Amino acid sequence: MSKPLILVSNDDGIIAHGLKLLIELMKDLGEVIVVAPDGPQSGMGHAITIGNTLRLSKTDHFEGITSYQCSGTPADCVKIAKGYVLKGRKPDLVVSGINHGSNTSISVIYSGTMSAAIEGAVEEIPSIGFSLCDYAADADFSHVKEHVVKIAEQVLAHGLPKGVALNVNFPPKQKAAIKGIKICRQTRAKWQEEFDRRIDPNGRQYFWLTGSFIHQDNGEDNDEWAIANNYTSVVPVSFDLTAYHAIAALNKDWDLNG
Amino acid sequence: MSKPLILVSNDDGIIAHGLKLLIELMKDLGEVIVVAPDGPQSGMGHAITIGNTLRLSKTDHFEGITSYQCSGTPADCVKIAKGYVLKGRKPDLVVSGINHGSNTSISVIYSGTMSAAIEGAVEEIPSIGFSLCDYAADADFSHVKEHVVKIAEQVLAHGLPKGVALNVNFPPKQKAAIKGIKICRQTRAKWQEEFDRRIDPNGRQYFWLTGSFIHQDNGEDNDEWAIANNYTSVVPVSFDLTAYHAIAALNKDWDLNG
Repeated sequence: MSKPLILVSNDDGIIAHGLKLLIELMKDLGEVIVVAPDGPQSGMGHAITIGNTLRLSKTDHFEGITSYQCSGTPADCVKIAKGYVLKGRKPDLVVSGINHGSNTSISVIYSGTMSAAIEGAVEEIPSIGFSLCDYAADADFSHVKEHVVKIAEQVLAHGLPKGVALNVNFPPKQKAAIKGIKICRQTRAKWQEEFDRRIDPNGRQYFWLTGSFIHQDNGEDNDEWAIANNYTSVVPVSFDLTAYHAIAALNKDWDLNG
Repeated sequence: MSKPLILVSNDDGIIAHGLKLLIELMKDLGEVIVVAPDGPQSGMGHAITIGNTLRLSKTDHFEGITSYQCSGTPADCVKIAKGYVLKGRKPDLVVSGINHGSNTSISVIYSGTMSAAIEGAVEEIPSIGFSLCDYAADADFSHVKEHVVKIAEQVLAHGLPKGVALNVNFPPKQKAAIKGIKICRQTRAKWQEEFDRRIDPNGRQYFWLTGSFIHQDNGEDNDEWAIANNYTSVVPVSFDLTAYHAIAALNKDWDLNG
Protein backbone atom coordinates (compact mmCIF):
# COMPACT_ATOMS: atom_id res chain seq x y z
CA MET A 1 0.00 0.00 0.00
CA SER A 2 1.38 3.43 -0.88
CA LYS A 3 1.96 5.90 1.89
CA PRO A 4 -0.65 8.63 2.37
CA LEU A 5 0.21 12.00 0.85
CA ILE A 6 0.24 14.72 3.51
CA LEU A 7 0.23 18.41 2.62
CA VAL A 8 1.67 20.61 5.38
CA SER A 9 1.16 24.37 5.64
CA ASN A 10 0.91 27.02 8.34
CA ASP A 11 0.46 30.74 8.91
CA ASP A 12 3.60 31.57 10.88
CA GLY A 13 5.71 31.09 7.74
CA ILE A 14 8.20 28.60 6.37
CA ILE A 15 10.86 29.10 9.04
CA ALA A 16 8.54 28.74 12.04
CA HIS A 17 9.49 26.21 14.69
CA GLY A 18 5.97 24.74 14.82
CA LEU A 19 6.04 23.95 11.09
CA LYS A 20 9.34 22.11 11.41
CA LEU A 21 8.00 20.02 14.26
CA LEU A 22 4.79 19.20 12.36
CA ILE A 23 6.83 18.05 9.35
CA GLU A 24 8.96 15.81 11.56
CA LEU A 25 5.85 14.20 13.04
CA MET A 26 4.09 13.75 9.69
CA LYS A 27 7.16 12.12 8.07
CA ASP A 28 6.43 8.97 10.05
CA LEU A 29 2.84 8.86 8.80
CA GLY A 30 3.23 9.44 5.08
CA GLU A 31 4.82 11.25 2.17
CA VAL A 32 5.10 14.89 3.13
CA ILE A 33 4.97 17.92 0.86
CA VAL A 34 5.21 21.46 2.25
CA VAL A 35 3.76 24.66 0.81
CA ALA A 36 3.96 27.45 3.37
CA PRO A 37 3.93 31.25 3.37
CA ASP A 38 7.32 32.92 2.90
CA GLY A 39 6.65 35.07 5.97
CA PRO A 40 4.20 35.40 8.86
CA GLN A 41 0.52 35.55 7.90
CA SER A 42 -1.12 35.60 11.32
CA GLY A 43 -4.60 37.07 11.46
CA MET A 44 -5.10 36.65 7.73
CA GLY A 45 -8.44 34.89 8.20
CA HIS A 46 -9.56 33.22 5.02
CA ALA A 47 -7.88 35.81 2.79
CA ILE A 48 -6.89 34.86 -0.75
CA THR A 49 -4.78 36.80 -3.22
CA ILE A 50 -6.84 38.22 -6.06
CA GLY A 51 -5.95 41.31 -8.03
CA ASN A 52 -2.30 40.58 -7.28
CA THR A 53 0.28 37.99 -8.30
CA LEU A 54 1.72 35.09 -6.32
CA ARG A 55 5.32 33.97 -6.08
CA LEU A 56 6.23 30.34 -5.48
CA SER A 57 9.72 28.90 -5.09
CA LYS A 58 11.21 25.59 -4.07
CA THR A 59 13.23 25.62 -0.87
CA ASP A 60 15.70 23.28 0.79
CA HIS A 61 14.67 24.17 4.34
CA PHE A 62 13.77 20.60 5.24
CA GLU A 63 16.18 17.80 4.44
CA GLY A 64 14.62 15.06 2.35
CA ILE A 65 11.27 16.89 2.09
CA THR A 66 9.89 18.64 -0.98
CA SER A 67 9.00 22.13 0.16
CA TYR A 68 7.90 25.41 -1.37
CA GLN A 69 7.44 28.91 -0.06
CA CYS A 70 4.65 31.07 -1.40
CA SER A 71 4.14 34.83 -1.19
CA GLY A 72 0.44 34.38 -0.46
CA THR A 73 -1.81 33.56 2.44
CA PRO A 74 -2.29 30.11 4.01
CA ALA A 75 -5.42 29.59 1.88
CA ASP A 76 -3.37 30.51 -1.22
CA CYS A 77 -0.75 27.92 -0.22
CA VAL A 78 -3.31 25.11 -0.18
CA LYS A 79 -4.84 26.31 -3.44
CA ILE A 80 -1.51 26.52 -5.27
CA ALA A 81 -0.43 23.17 -3.84
CA LYS A 82 -3.53 21.55 -5.23
CA GLY A 83 -3.83 23.58 -8.42
CA TYR A 84 -0.17 23.63 -9.47
CA VAL A 85 2.45 21.91 -7.29
CA LEU A 86 0.76 18.52 -6.94
CA LYS A 87 -0.22 18.32 -10.63
CA GLY A 88 -3.49 16.54 -10.00
CA ARG A 89 -2.44 14.34 -7.07
CA LYS A 90 -4.88 14.77 -4.21
CA PRO A 91 -3.52 14.78 -0.65
CA ASP A 92 -4.96 12.29 1.81
CA LEU A 93 -4.53 14.80 4.62
CA VAL A 94 -3.93 18.53 5.00
CA VAL A 95 -2.33 19.68 8.27
CA SER A 96 -1.64 23.28 9.24
CA GLY A 97 0.48 24.61 12.08
CA ILE A 98 1.59 24.03 14.70
CA ASN A 99 0.55 27.63 15.29
CA HIS A 100 2.43 29.62 17.89
CA GLY A 101 -0.61 30.97 19.74
CA SER A 102 -4.21 30.06 20.44
CA ASN A 103 -6.93 29.57 17.84
CA THR A 104 -9.70 28.63 20.25
CA SER A 105 -13.12 30.22 20.37
CA ILE A 106 -13.84 33.23 18.14
CA SER A 107 -10.16 33.34 17.09
CA VAL A 108 -11.01 30.63 14.56
CA ILE A 109 -12.54 33.24 12.24
CA TYR A 110 -9.33 35.32 12.20
CA SER A 111 -7.02 32.34 11.96
CA GLY A 112 -4.69 31.80 9.03
CA THR A 113 -3.84 28.37 10.44
CA MET A 114 -7.45 27.30 10.26
CA SER A 115 -7.99 28.87 6.82
CA ALA A 116 -5.47 26.40 5.37
CA ALA A 117 -7.36 23.54 7.03
CA ILE A 118 -10.76 24.84 5.93
CA GLU A 119 -9.46 25.25 2.38
CA GLY A 120 -8.49 21.57 2.51
CA ALA A 121 -11.98 20.65 3.70
CA VAL A 122 -13.56 22.64 0.86
CA GLU A 123 -11.50 20.40 -1.45
CA GLU A 124 -12.97 17.37 0.35
CA ILE A 125 -9.61 16.46 1.91
CA PRO A 126 -9.58 15.55 5.63
CA SER A 127 -7.87 18.56 7.23
CA ILE A 128 -6.61 19.64 10.63
CA GLY A 129 -5.29 22.90 12.07
CA PHE A 130 -3.03 22.59 15.14
CA SER A 131 -2.31 25.45 17.55
CA LEU A 132 -0.43 25.77 20.81
CA CYS A 133 -2.09 28.14 23.30
CA ASP A 134 1.19 29.70 24.39
CA TYR A 135 2.38 33.10 23.15
CA ALA A 136 5.74 33.00 24.96
CA ALA A 137 8.66 33.60 22.57
CA ASP A 138 10.31 30.42 23.84
CA ALA A 139 7.11 28.36 24.01
CA ASP A 140 7.81 24.65 24.51
CA PHE A 141 6.07 22.48 21.87
CA SER A 142 7.47 19.14 23.08
CA HIS A 143 4.41 18.02 25.06
CA VAL A 144 2.05 18.10 22.06
CA LYS A 145 3.79 15.56 19.84
CA GLU A 146 1.87 12.52 20.99
CA HIS A 147 -1.53 14.15 20.45
CA VAL A 148 -0.60 15.56 17.04
CA VAL A 149 0.26 12.07 15.86
CA LYS A 150 -2.74 10.45 17.54
CA ILE A 151 -5.22 12.88 16.01
CA ALA A 152 -3.63 12.69 12.54
CA GLU A 153 -3.73 8.89 12.74
CA GLN A 154 -7.41 8.92 13.71
CA VAL A 155 -8.22 11.22 10.78
CA LEU A 156 -6.24 9.07 8.34
CA ALA A 157 -8.02 5.97 9.66
CA HIS A 158 -11.59 7.28 9.89
CA GLY A 159 -11.69 10.32 7.59
CA LEU A 160 -13.86 13.25 8.61
CA PRO A 161 -17.53 14.05 7.99
CA LYS A 162 -18.02 15.91 4.70
CA GLY A 163 -17.58 19.65 5.02
CA VAL A 164 -15.80 19.45 8.36
CA ALA A 165 -12.21 20.38 9.36
CA LEU A 166 -10.72 20.04 12.84
CA ASN A 167 -9.57 22.96 14.97
CA VAL A 168 -7.12 21.43 17.47
CA ASN A 169 -5.64 23.47 20.31
CA PHE A 170 -3.10 22.36 22.90
CA PRO A 171 -2.68 23.78 26.41
CA PRO A 172 0.67 25.37 27.32
CA LYS A 173 3.21 22.94 28.78
CA GLN A 174 2.62 22.34 32.45
CA LYS A 175 4.22 20.15 35.08
CA ALA A 176 1.49 17.57 34.66
CA ALA A 177 1.03 15.88 31.27
CA ILE A 178 -1.99 16.88 29.14
CA LYS A 179 -4.96 15.03 30.66
CA GLY A 180 -6.51 13.84 27.40
CA ILE A 181 -8.37 14.92 24.27
CA LYS A 182 -11.84 16.50 24.36
CA ILE A 183 -14.18 16.91 21.39
CA CYS A 184 -15.60 20.40 21.99
CA ARG A 185 -17.76 23.17 20.63
CA GLN A 186 -16.46 26.69 19.90
CA THR A 187 -16.52 28.86 23.04
CA ARG A 188 -18.75 31.96 22.98
CA ALA A 189 -16.34 34.86 23.44
CA LYS A 190 -15.06 37.96 21.72
CA TRP A 191 -12.10 40.27 21.63
CA GLN A 192 -12.53 43.65 23.25
CA GLU A 193 -10.43 45.87 21.04
CA GLU A 194 -8.29 48.64 22.33
CA PHE A 195 -6.52 50.88 19.84
CA ASP A 196 -3.17 52.19 20.96
CA ARG A 197 -2.90 55.55 19.18
CA ARG A 198 0.57 56.93 18.52
CA ILE A 199 2.14 59.72 16.50
CA ASP A 200 4.79 58.93 13.90
CA PRO A 201 7.97 61.05 13.38
CA ASN A 202 6.05 63.06 10.74
CA GLY A 203 3.27 63.99 13.13
CA ARG A 204 0.65 61.65 11.68
CA GLN A 205 -1.40 59.29 13.84
CA TYR A 206 -1.21 55.52 13.60
CA PHE A 207 -2.71 52.70 15.63
CA TRP A 208 -1.81 49.33 17.04
CA LEU A 209 -4.75 46.97 17.40
CA THR A 210 -4.65 45.37 20.82
CA GLY A 211 -7.37 43.76 22.82
CA SER A 212 -8.41 41.50 25.61
CA PHE A 213 -10.33 38.26 25.44
CA ILE A 214 -13.85 38.42 26.83
CA HIS A 215 -15.08 34.99 27.90
CA GLN A 216 -18.89 34.79 27.60
CA ASP A 217 -19.44 31.08 28.10
CA ASN A 218 -19.80 29.07 31.32
CA GLY A 219 -20.05 25.68 29.59
CA GLU A 220 -17.69 22.79 30.20
CA ASP A 221 -18.07 21.37 26.70
CA ASN A 222 -16.17 24.15 24.93
CA ASP A 223 -12.56 24.58 23.82
CA GLU A 224 -11.63 27.30 26.32
CA TRP A 225 -12.73 25.06 29.19
CA ALA A 226 -10.67 22.18 27.80
CA ILE A 227 -7.51 24.30 27.48
CA ALA A 228 -7.98 25.84 30.94
CA ASN A 229 -8.22 22.33 32.37
CA ASN A 230 -5.13 21.00 30.57
CA TYR A 231 -6.93 19.03 27.86
CA THR A 232 -6.30 19.13 24.12
CA SER A 233 -9.43 20.54 22.45
CA VAL A 234 -10.78 19.32 19.11
CA VAL A 235 -13.57 21.41 17.55
CA PRO A 236 -15.09 20.14 14.30
CA VAL A 237 -15.70 23.27 12.18
CA SER A 238 -17.91 23.78 9.15
CA PHE A 239 -17.52 26.12 6.17
CA ASP A 240 -21.27 26.12 5.66
CA LEU A 241 -21.95 29.28 7.66
CA THR A 242 -25.73 29.05 7.27
CA ALA A 243 -27.49 29.69 10.60
CA TYR A 244 -30.18 27.11 9.86
CA HIS A 245 -32.12 27.91 13.03
CA ALA A 246 -32.55 31.49 11.83
CA ILE A 247 -34.18 30.65 8.49
CA ALA A 248 -37.58 29.85 9.98
CA ALA A 249 -37.40 32.86 12.32
CA LEU A 250 -36.74 35.26 9.44
CA ASN A 251 -39.49 33.76 7.32
CA LYS A 252 -41.91 34.15 10.21
CA ASP A 253 -41.01 37.64 11.45
CA TRP A 254 -40.29 39.52 8.29
CA ASP A 255 -42.65 41.19 5.92
CA LEU A 256 -40.48 40.90 2.83
CA ASN A 257 -42.64 40.28 -0.16
CA GLY A 258 -45.77 42.13 0.89
CA MET B 1 -36.87 59.29 19.37
CA SER B 2 -33.28 59.59 18.19
CA LYS B 3 -32.36 58.25 14.77
CA PRO B 4 -30.60 54.88 14.64
CA LEU B 5 -26.83 55.01 14.25
CA ILE B 6 -25.74 53.16 11.11
CA LEU B 7 -22.10 52.19 10.51
CA VAL B 8 -21.29 51.71 6.82
CA SER B 9 -18.24 49.89 5.49
CA ASN B 10 -17.25 47.78 2.49
CA ASP B 11 -14.35 45.92 0.91
CA ASP B 12 -14.11 47.65 -2.46
CA GLY B 13 -12.74 50.76 -0.76
CA ILE B 14 -13.88 54.28 0.06
CA ILE B 15 -14.32 55.47 -3.54
CA ALA B 16 -16.40 52.48 -4.71
CA HIS B 17 -19.72 53.23 -6.37
CA GLY B 18 -21.56 50.63 -4.27
CA LEU B 19 -20.47 52.31 -1.03
CA LYS B 20 -21.74 55.69 -2.21
CA LEU B 21 -25.10 54.21 -3.10
CA LEU B 22 -25.38 52.39 0.23
CA ILE B 23 -24.64 55.62 2.11
CA GLU B 24 -27.32 57.45 0.11
CA LEU B 25 -29.89 54.78 0.99
CA MET B 26 -28.94 54.61 4.68
CA LYS B 27 -29.14 58.42 5.10
CA ASP B 28 -32.92 58.14 5.00
CA LEU B 29 -32.96 55.51 7.76
CA GLY B 30 -30.62 57.00 10.34
CA GLU B 31 -27.44 58.82 11.28
CA VAL B 32 -24.68 57.45 9.05
CA ILE B 33 -21.00 57.12 9.86
CA VAL B 34 -18.57 55.62 7.35
CA VAL B 35 -15.30 53.78 8.05
CA ALA B 36 -14.08 52.07 4.89
CA PRO B 37 -10.78 50.74 3.54
CA ASP B 38 -8.60 53.28 1.70
CA GLY B 39 -8.30 50.87 -1.22
CA PRO B 40 -9.75 47.61 -2.52
CA GLN B 41 -9.69 44.69 -0.04
CA SER B 42 -11.51 42.03 -2.04
CA GLY B 43 -10.82 38.44 -1.03
CA MET B 44 -9.49 39.48 2.36
CA GLY B 45 -11.72 37.03 4.20
CA HIS B 46 -11.81 37.77 7.89
CA ALA B 47 -8.26 39.13 7.96
CA ILE B 48 -7.27 41.60 10.66
CA THR B 49 -4.10 43.65 10.97
CA ILE B 50 -1.82 42.40 13.72
CA GLY B 51 1.93 42.82 13.76
CA ASN B 52 1.48 45.97 11.68
CA THR B 53 0.09 49.46 12.22
CA LEU B 54 -3.15 50.98 11.00
CA ARG B 55 -3.73 54.40 9.50
CA LEU B 56 -7.02 56.24 9.89
CA SER B 57 -7.95 59.61 8.43
CA LYS B 58 -11.09 61.68 8.10
CA THR B 59 -12.30 62.26 4.55
CA ASP B 60 -14.75 64.60 2.89
CA HIS B 61 -15.80 62.14 0.20
CA PHE B 62 -19.47 62.25 1.20
CA GLU B 63 -21.17 65.60 1.70
CA GLY B 64 -22.78 65.93 5.09
CA ILE B 65 -21.57 62.51 6.25
CA THR B 66 -18.79 61.81 8.75
CA SER B 67 -16.43 59.43 7.00
CA TYR B 68 -13.02 57.89 7.57
CA GLN B 69 -10.67 55.82 5.46
CA CYS B 70 -8.55 53.14 7.09
CA SER B 71 -5.47 51.34 5.80
CA GLY B 72 -6.74 48.01 7.15
CA THR B 73 -9.17 45.30 6.18
CA PRO B 74 -12.98 45.49 6.38
CA ALA B 75 -12.86 43.72 9.77
CA ASP B 76 -10.29 46.30 10.96
CA CYS B 77 -12.65 49.10 9.84
CA VAL B 78 -15.48 47.83 12.03
CA LYS B 79 -13.10 47.26 14.94
CA ILE B 80 -11.57 50.75 14.76
CA ALA B 81 -15.01 52.31 14.30
CA LYS B 82 -16.20 50.65 17.47
CA GLY B 83 -12.96 50.86 19.45
CA TYR B 84 -11.90 54.40 18.54
CA VAL B 85 -14.03 56.47 16.17
CA LEU B 86 -17.39 56.05 17.90
CA LYS B 87 -15.95 56.58 21.40
CA GLY B 88 -18.28 54.10 23.07
CA ARG B 89 -21.43 54.76 21.03
CA LYS B 90 -22.76 51.46 19.73
CA PRO B 91 -24.25 51.37 16.23
CA ASP B 92 -27.81 50.08 15.82
CA LEU B 93 -26.90 48.59 12.47
CA VAL B 94 -23.74 47.71 10.52
CA VAL B 95 -24.06 47.52 6.73
CA SER B 96 -21.31 46.55 4.32
CA GLY B 97 -21.18 46.91 0.55
CA ILE B 98 -22.76 47.12 -1.86
CA ASN B 99 -20.07 44.76 -3.14
CA HIS B 100 -19.30 44.80 -6.84
CA GLY B 101 -19.47 41.02 -7.37
CA SER B 102 -21.12 37.96 -5.91
CA ASN B 103 -20.70 36.69 -2.35
CA THR B 104 -23.05 33.74 -2.62
CA SER B 105 -22.24 30.18 -1.68
CA ILE B 106 -18.66 29.33 -0.62
CA SER B 107 -17.53 32.86 -1.57
CA VAL B 108 -18.82 33.96 1.84
CA ILE B 109 -15.67 32.58 3.50
CA TYR B 110 -13.38 34.66 1.25
CA SER B 111 -15.51 37.78 1.42
CA GLY B 112 -14.24 41.03 2.88
CA THR B 113 -17.76 42.45 2.57
CA MET B 114 -19.13 39.75 4.82
CA SER B 115 -16.22 39.97 7.26
CA ALA B 116 -17.31 43.52 8.14
CA ALA B 117 -20.86 42.27 8.72
CA ILE B 118 -19.70 39.27 10.75
CA GLU B 119 -17.47 41.53 12.83
CA GLY B 120 -20.58 43.59 13.61
CA ALA B 121 -22.47 40.46 14.62
CA VAL B 122 -19.61 39.42 16.94
CA GLU B 123 -20.17 42.79 18.63
CA GLU B 124 -23.86 41.92 18.95
CA ILE B 125 -24.89 44.57 16.44
CA PRO B 126 -27.45 43.59 13.76
CA SER B 127 -25.35 43.46 10.59
CA ILE B 128 -25.85 42.97 6.86
CA GLY B 129 -23.50 42.49 3.91
CA PHE B 130 -24.90 43.44 0.49
CA SER B 131 -23.45 42.23 -2.81
CA LEU B 132 -24.45 42.57 -6.45
CA CYS B 133 -23.82 39.44 -8.52
CA ASP B 134 -22.51 41.35 -11.49
CA TYR B 135 -18.81 41.66 -12.29
CA ALA B 136 -19.25 43.96 -15.30
CA ALA B 137 -17.18 47.15 -14.98
CA ASP B 138 -20.29 49.23 -15.64
CA ALA B 139 -22.63 47.09 -13.51
CA ASP B 140 -25.98 48.78 -12.92
CA PHE B 141 -26.87 48.97 -9.20
CA SER B 142 -30.14 50.88 -9.64
CA HIS B 143 -32.50 47.90 -9.37
CA VAL B 144 -31.34 46.90 -5.86
CA LYS B 145 -32.24 50.10 -4.00
CA GLU B 146 -35.71 49.04 -2.92
CA HIS B 147 -34.54 45.73 -1.45
CA VAL B 148 -31.55 47.28 0.34
CA VAL B 149 -33.90 49.65 2.13
CA LYS B 150 -36.55 46.98 2.81
CA ILE B 151 -34.05 44.55 4.32
CA ALA B 152 -32.34 47.24 6.42
CA GLU B 153 -35.76 48.39 7.68
CA GLN B 154 -36.73 44.83 8.64
CA VAL B 155 -33.46 44.39 10.56
CA LEU B 156 -33.88 47.73 12.34
CA ALA B 157 -37.47 46.78 13.25
CA HIS B 158 -36.96 43.15 14.29
CA GLY B 159 -33.25 42.83 15.07
CA LEU B 160 -31.50 39.58 14.24
CA PRO B 161 -31.04 36.35 16.19
CA LYS B 162 -27.93 36.48 18.39
CA GLY B 163 -24.76 35.46 16.59
CA VAL B 164 -26.29 35.89 13.12
CA ALA B 165 -25.43 38.30 10.29
CA LEU B 166 -27.14 38.47 6.90
CA ASN B 167 -25.46 37.71 3.58
CA VAL B 168 -27.61 39.46 0.98
CA ASN B 169 -26.97 39.03 -2.75
CA PHE B 170 -28.80 40.68 -5.63
CA PRO B 171 -29.17 39.29 -9.14
CA PRO B 172 -27.74 41.33 -12.04
CA LYS B 173 -30.15 43.84 -13.55
CA GLN B 174 -32.51 42.21 -16.00
CA LYS B 175 -35.42 43.40 -18.08
CA ALA B 176 -37.87 42.07 -15.53
CA ALA B 177 -37.80 43.46 -11.98
CA ILE B 178 -36.35 41.27 -9.20
CA LYS B 179 -39.13 38.79 -8.33
CA GLY B 180 -38.83 39.01 -4.57
CA ILE B 181 -36.69 38.16 -1.55
CA LYS B 182 -35.86 34.56 -0.56
CA ILE B 183 -34.42 33.47 2.80
CA CYS B 184 -31.89 30.82 1.74
CA ARG B 185 -29.14 28.49 2.86
CA GLN B 186 -25.56 28.67 1.56
CA THR B 187 -25.18 26.74 -1.71
CA ARG B 188 -22.78 23.78 -1.73
CA ALA B 189 -20.14 24.70 -4.29
CA LYS B 190 -16.45 25.36 -4.61
CA TRP B 191 -13.97 27.17 -6.80
CA GLN B 192 -11.86 25.06 -9.10
CA GLU B 193 -8.58 26.93 -9.11
CA GLU B 194 -6.45 27.36 -12.15
CA PHE B 195 -3.07 29.02 -11.80
CA ASP B 196 -1.97 31.07 -14.77
CA ARG B 197 1.84 30.79 -14.67
CA ARG B 198 3.86 33.57 -16.27
CA ILE B 199 7.47 34.68 -16.42
CA ASP B 200 8.42 38.20 -15.30
CA PRO B 201 10.95 40.41 -17.15
CA ASN B 202 13.66 39.01 -14.84
CA GLY B 203 12.95 35.42 -15.77
CA ARG B 204 11.20 34.48 -12.51
CA GLN B 205 7.85 32.74 -12.44
CA TYR B 206 4.70 34.26 -10.99
CA PHE B 207 1.08 33.20 -10.88
CA TRP B 208 -2.39 34.63 -11.23
CA LEU B 209 -5.04 32.78 -9.27
CA THR B 210 -8.04 32.18 -11.50
CA GLY B 211 -10.79 29.64 -11.27
CA SER B 212 -14.22 28.52 -12.18
CA PHE B 213 -17.23 28.03 -9.98
CA ILE B 214 -18.27 24.40 -9.48
CA HIS B 215 -21.94 24.14 -8.52
CA GLN B 216 -22.53 21.01 -6.39
CA ASP B 217 -26.06 21.63 -5.20
CA ASN B 218 -29.39 20.85 -6.88
CA GLY B 219 -31.55 22.42 -4.16
CA GLU B 220 -34.01 25.24 -4.75
CA ASP B 221 -33.63 26.65 -1.24
CA ASN B 222 -30.10 27.99 -1.71
CA ASP B 223 -28.67 31.37 -2.68
CA GLU B 224 -27.38 30.35 -6.12
CA TRP B 225 -30.84 29.14 -7.08
CA ALA B 226 -32.37 32.41 -5.91
CA ILE B 227 -29.92 34.54 -7.91
CA ALA B 228 -30.30 32.36 -11.03
CA ASN B 229 -34.07 32.82 -10.78
CA ASN B 230 -33.93 36.61 -10.35
CA TYR B 231 -34.61 36.71 -6.61
CA THR B 232 -32.65 38.56 -3.93
CA SER B 233 -31.09 35.97 -1.61
CA VAL B 234 -30.76 36.41 2.16
CA VAL B 235 -28.62 33.83 3.97
CA PRO B 236 -28.39 34.11 7.78
CA VAL B 237 -24.76 33.28 8.63
CA SER B 238 -23.20 32.27 11.93
CA PHE B 239 -19.69 32.87 13.29
CA ASP B 240 -20.00 29.79 15.48
CA LEU B 241 -18.31 27.42 13.06
CA THR B 242 -18.87 24.34 15.24
CA ALA B 243 -20.15 21.42 13.18
CA TYR B 244 -22.43 20.22 15.97
CA HIS B 245 -23.53 17.14 14.05
CA ALA B 246 -19.91 15.97 13.94
CA ILE B 247 -19.28 16.04 17.71
CA ALA B 248 -21.19 12.83 18.42
CA ALA B 249 -19.66 11.12 15.38
CA LEU B 250 -16.11 11.91 16.50
CA ASN B 251 -16.80 10.79 20.07
CA LYS B 252 -18.20 7.52 18.75
CA ASP B 253 -15.63 6.65 16.06
CA TRP B 254 -12.40 7.77 17.59
CA ASP B 255 -10.16 6.01 20.01
CA LEU B 256 -8.63 9.10 21.57
CA ASN B 257 -8.06 8.52 25.21
CA GLY B 258 -7.42 4.80 25.22
